[in-house]
Amino acid sequence: MTSSSKIHFEDLVVGTVETCGGYQVTRKEVIGFATNYDPQPFHVDDEVAAASIFGKIAASGMHTLAMTMRMLVDNRAGRYASMGGGGIDKLRWTAPVYPGDTLSVRSTLVDKRRIRSRPDRGMAVMRQETMNQHGKVVMTYEFSAFFALRDPSAPFEI
Amino acid sequence: MTSSSKIHFEDLVVGTVETCGGYQVTRKEVIGFATNYDPQPFHVDDEVAAASIFGKIAASGMHTLAMTMRMLVDNRAGRYASMGGGGIDKLRWTAPVYPGDTLSVRSTLVDKRRIRSRPDRGMAVMRQETMNQHGKVVMTYEFSAFFALRDPSAPFEI
Repeated sequence: MTSSSKIHFEDLVVGTVETCGGYQVTRKEVIGFATNYDPQPFHVDDEVAAASIFGKIAASGMHTLAMTMRMLVDNRAGRYASMGGGGIDKLRWTAPVYPGDTLSVRSTLVDKRRIRSRPDRGMAVMRQETMNQHGKVVMTYEFSAFFALRDPSAPFEI
Repeated sequence: MTSSSKIHFEDLVVGTVETCGGYQVTRKEVIGFATNYDPQPFHVDDEVAAASIFGKIAASGMHTLAMTMRMLVDNRAGRYASMGGGGIDKLRWTAPVYPGDTLSVRSTLVDKRRIRSRPDRGMAVMRQETMNQHGKVVMTYEFSAFFALRDPSAPFEI
């Protein structure tokens, strides 16, 4: 894909919804991630998990976020004239993620704006909703990212 | 540690600052995490990274978040009467994290409040600042979490 054929800031349409995913959550990966990064007993120990609010071993919230990132990167795969991530807001975990679940992400473009201090790029805000195979939303957040302008000399009001 | 000797909602003091960490960031782990969860070329390919804004391979922002979680879990290690995480707000990546860096986290309790709908617990908000070995802040966010009350029958105004 050539640089100019990529999706630039001007091409982004607020309200656009895209769904991607099909991430298979395995017990091995859930325990492996938690062992490395979030070794709270209810993420790695069957007995403790059974007595917890989860009822059985559940994925770390950080793991759900990482799996969501992977689905988004795979879907994006160089299609966008990306200039980096800005931040995450309003991240909430709304339901547990269990081994055996299959995750997908619904991504809605909720805002875009030029940046006075950086005329070569604009910022877009995407609302991400990670869902399980039953369509239940397990995590939501807003992700801000920067996208190159096709024409940085364009009037600021685009 | 007995349950009652743990730190409960009543024991939390707004303004308290705690620092923990000493996480050694290795090239192997940076590339391994990015390969699994954020395989953008500048996180996994030396040549692409050299030409990117990072100048060399840098950790995925999701990896920095995961490493920060690990430091916090290790430090907390059952000392708190925790009732789960609530969410993350205002997450920003402020400087790159490179293999060879050593990370630490400064955690400031910025707010605490009772929850009318759940009298058995209160919510606390912690501002987390992840720093490298030069004291440079590489990531910041606010983390909300729930803590059990020692005495759920206490007047609501504590």
